[in-house]
Amino acid sequence: MIKSRAAVAFGPNEPLKIVEVDVQPPKFGEVLVRIVASGVCHTDAYTLSGQDSEGVFPCILGHEGGGIVEAVGEGVTSLQIGDHVIPLYTAECGKCKFCVSGKTNLCQAVRATQGKGLMPDGTTRFSYNGEPVYHYMGCSTFSEYTVLPEISLAKIPKEAPLEKVCLLGCGVTTGIGAVLNTAKVEEGATVAVFGLGGIGLAAIIGARMVKASRIIAIDINPSKFGIAQELGATDFLNPKDFDRPIQEVIVELTDGGVDYSFECIGNVQLMRAALESCHKGWGESIIIGVAPSGAEISTRPFQLVTGRVWRGSAFGGVKGRTELPSYVAKSERGEIPLEKFITHTMSLEQINEAFELMHEGKSIRSVVHF
Amino acid sequence: MIKSRAAVAFGPNEPLKIVEVDVQPPKFGEVLVRIVASGVCHTDAYTLSGQDSEGVFPCILGHEGGGIVEAVGEGVTSLQIGDHVIPLYTAECGKCKFCVSGKTNLCQAVRATQGKGLMPDGTTRFSYNGEPVYHYMGCSTFSEYTVLPEISLAKIPKEAPLEKVCLLGCGVTTGIGAVLNTAKVEEGATVAVFGLGGIGLAAIIGARMVKASRIIAIDINPSKFGIAQELGATDFLNPKDFDRPIQEVIVELTDGGVDYSFECIGNVQLMRAALESCHKGWGESIIIGVAPSGAEISTRPFQLVTGRVWRGSAFGGVKGRTELPSYVAKSERGEIPLEKFITHTMSLEQINEAFELMHEGKSIRSVVHF
Repeated sequence: MIKSRAAVAFGPNEPLKIVEVDVQPPKFGEVLVRIVASGVCHTDAYTLSGQDSEGVFPCILGHEGGGIVEAVGEGVTSLQIGDHVIPLYTAECGKCKFCVSGKTNLCQAVRATQGKGLMPDGTTRFSYNGEPVYHYMGCSTFSEYTVLPEISLAKIPKEAPLEKVCLLGCGVTTGIGAVLNTAKVEEGATVAVFGLGGIGLAAIIGARMVKASRIIAIDINPSKFGIAQELGATDFLNPKDFDRPIQEVIVELTDGGVDYSFECIGNVQLMRAALESCHKGWGESIIIGVAPSGAEISTRPFQLVTGRVWRGSAFGGVKGRTELPSYVAKSERGEIPLEKFITHTMSLEQINEAFELMHEGKSIRSVVHF
Repeated sequence: MIKSRAAVAFGPNEPLKIVEVDVQPPKFGEVLVRIVASGVCHTDAYTLSGQDSEGVFPCILGHEGGGIVEAVGEGVTSLQIGDHVIPLYTAECGKCKFCVSGKTNLCQAVRATQGKGLMPDGTTRFSYNGEPVYHYMGCSTFSEYTVLPEISLAKIPKEAPLEKVCLLGCGVTTGIGAVLNTAKVEEGATVAVFGLGGIGLAAIIGARMVKASRIIAIDINPSKFGIAQELGATDFLNPKDFDRPIQEVIVELTDGGVDYSFECIGNVQLMRAALESCHKGWGESIIIGVAPSGAEISTRPFQLVTGRVWRGSAFGGVKGRTELPSYVAKSERGEIPLEKFITHTMSLEQINEAFELMHEGKSIRSVVHF
């Protein structure tokens, strides 16, 4: 048993408390990781808000981390002490029906227990004052030490700065991957990105990478337009500037609609707007944002019958263990300017400020340095 | 001006009246066609019910016909008198943004006027007692003589029996094309077909053509299961036999859901069931049915974020002028057993019986012989 500083969510809507938790050593197939840095993502805030049906408390949030292997459990063959890793909330076992299908990154090997805040054996490795503390998204990167299944860790080169590439553990990869893997946007295509948080900005980077001809950035917070433009967006729309639905504005602006749209917020009305912004005959809309529990999307089926396609993307369709290293390489080559996402860095003790900055729309990403 | 026997819909929910209408000669780019036979489709009944927002009365319904070119207007180059043709409610001009995209069959060249019951010049060729009678879906095959734009006619070999291949003008091509063109179902895939009318049965034929491993036929009218089996369905489900949602039954039956599902009715609840019957990670659902005006589909976005895809299909994604002849060839080679669809044949005078048979679920297709 080792001691670890951690930001614990004791209950919904309560500020995180920095305490010293106990961490059990890794069991069979598990790995102990020392987290060096972790981004703070909207999904952490979503679960903290109590709206996430899978949220269990007390738990240690955080799923956008970078760390170093500190110990390996029995049976672990692909990682050793000292390896640099990015925790994966979507594992890659390579053996389940999903992995072998070649059609999806949604490995289900540890899904059931992960959704309950537990390790694959149905128990937790964290405790505080003798009481169990739950894992979160299989990662719990708001703890200096955390335990993950081997299949939930992507090994990356030691040269890559963990304080930056930690962001590839969620938002940035999600946004770029949705463009590259899920939508497979082609050169010259027109793209609309709804929501200019970390994921939306990453989608803009992806669209720029594939040489989209037009990248329309949409947000009700116009202070985001500057960074969107730096990253490659060509058009900027604030829905509040119009007295008609934003999809009508986009359809008009693009002579029929965009080829691809991306919803990067988790708002079901915007998901509809994003679909209806697509061009008749071939436009595809990709839902990336996570909607509140129970919320539903809707549209007239005519939208689909006339050729639009409605998809979703989780972790950008990226298979973490095999594909994430290529994203790290892209960032090392300067193709993914991670530094532009990091508006704030702070110590673990200041982590509640990261949530405040996010809620106020003042940050893109805050990165906690342990 | 020529005289033509026609079944006219004078108003919503009124029986069609067999009268003699006046038909103007074809104008520039138009063709006069003598209809030899026409199927009666649910979409005709839908418009007759008054629910179709594009329905205008009085009009001449019918859009599933086979005929012979009787006269051509100025400028017509691809058709001549005596050619056998199938009218197309989705034209193929080869020149509009949609046609040149190569991504869709939804040619828009005549769409705006067609939706108003008019020819491309904004007028109608039909009249009765001097009053205009409107076109329908650009076809109006319930008239012995009808006028269409040249781009709305597929030329087919004279050997093909018009009394049978008329069905390729809508339902059969729609169902098969949705499988082949829209979903691109691959060998070994599992398929669920919701609704065993003409389109659903055709989807089963399509799934059989591509060697789907399992074809689940779903209908609340079990009398349809016999023909579904003859055409290649392997499993049969009547939602009324279960006290839980049919999507749960299908997911269980298929260890996670089907690879492809097709909604062939136009019921928004079933569209949702069809989507949710699909396998996590890769299942695709294709909406073919036409829903009542204003009806909306809905689901939790999580269904899409976890890898399901929602699409639609119109006329099976088939480009009429270039691709329909290959469907005629398939039927001539016995790959599309059209005769199994034709449960009733009748004269134009008996056409109201065709609607009754359809409403009672007693027919698959009634074909009117002129």
